[in-house]
Amino acid sequence: MSPKTQEPQVISITDLHPAQAKWVSLKKVDFIDQTGTARTWEVAVRKTTPKAGVDAVAMGNIFMHPSKPPSTLLVLQYRPPIGKYTVEWPAGLVDEHETPEEAAVREMKEETGYDGKVFDVSPVLASDPGMTNSTIKLVMVEVKLSGEEDFMPEQRLDDGELIERVMVPLDELYERLMKWANQDNYMVAAKLFYFAAGVNFAKKGGYI
Amino acid sequence: MSPKTQEPQVISITDLHPAQAKWVSLKKVDFIDQTGTARTWEVAVRKTTPKAGVDAVAMGNIFMHPSKPPSTLLVLQYRPPIGKYTVEWPAGLVDEHETPEEAAVREMKEETGYDGKVFDVSPVLASDPGMTNSTIKLVMVEVKLSGEEDFMPEQRLDDGELIERVMVPLDELYERLMKWANQDNYMVAAKLFYFAAGVNFAKKGGYI
Repeated sequence: MSPKTQEPQVISITDLHPAQAKWVSLKKVDFIDQTGTARTWEVAVRKTTPKAGVDAVAMGNIFMHPSKPPSTLLVLQYRPPIGKYTVEWPAGLVDEHETPEEAAVREMKEETGYDGKVFDVSPVLASDPGMTNSTIKLVMVEVKLSGEEDFMPEQRLDDGELIERVMVPLDELYERLMKWANQDNYMVAAKLFYFAAGVNFAKKGGYI
Repeated sequence: MSPKTQEPQVISITDLHPAQAKWVSLKKVDFIDQTGTARTWEVAVRKTTPKAGVDAVAMGNIFMHPSKPPSTLLVLQYRPPIGKYTVEWPAGLVDEHETPEEAAVREMKEETGYDGKVFDVSPVLASDPGMTNSTIKLVMVEVKLSGEEDFMPEQRLDDGELIERVMVPLDELYERLMKWANQDNYMVAAKLFYFAAGVNFAKKGGYI
């Protein structure tokens, strides 16, 4: 990982014409609704959707250790769209000729250094369907630790990726996310928060 | 609700210049990263972020009934960005002078017809931080039914909103989402799925 020498700084934010964009385009969808009325919708469209038909994978990861509680590895990274550090599960775009499972194992290795074993794959899910066509699969992966590891393994980050890793016991996940959310320079990613909220909701047992 | 007379149909999808868009813009962020390197990022930006500093609220709703299991009301609606019907919790944009709690009660009433009582509000969360600056709060609301309601109350939908409501027992939520996900013309929203996956994960008790 490159040395962290300064806080990231936004220099300028300027209009981008869709034709000049590489990753994201802006489109107007003209459609006829259920009543026969003509309507329009503005959509941010991913330009890179691969053959697998899903843009991204996120790795809901579970670390098992012989003497420590089951934990999950979160990644903290500066996200220019937000202008803050986000707290997320490792995630990445699916490459053109990959399956989502392959992308999950590859991205897990790149962002965390660990070899994960896939044990569950979600259906294709809509990331933010009021605004984008972006889709994601939640891929659950398990990592078994021997207990003899002294350090986290080296990451294999792409140029420009600077990703900090934090291991969190699963039964503290919700509380830890709340702590990050209360810090000005951090924002928790919605999907991870919803998972933790679901776990917390079930554990409290009030309604289930 | 207007009569549903036909399946929605996309007529055209065309490039939209950011200056002509009302709701969503496309921007190029120039920034300096932690190593001092100049980089750029393409971002879909909401144009309507209100004073409250959060774009949207979603209502994680719990319906209590004297003789039925605790349930949650989901909304099914055609989403042009996806070109399918999505399965989501009720949600909407926060108006300019509203608090997120006020928006949650208002949108719950509009989309479902029910008066909800807010019992928990999440921090500001990043909806899809690799691609957009869009943010959301998960607002948990409770609706107490007397058991004497024969029908669902009338919705107060905006022009163009066509929203179907489906009540699902909470302990069947994950399985019901999986069933929708297996139908070609439906897609489950990621955040709702993550919540259900969290509940399911905790209930199975394998790792918690």
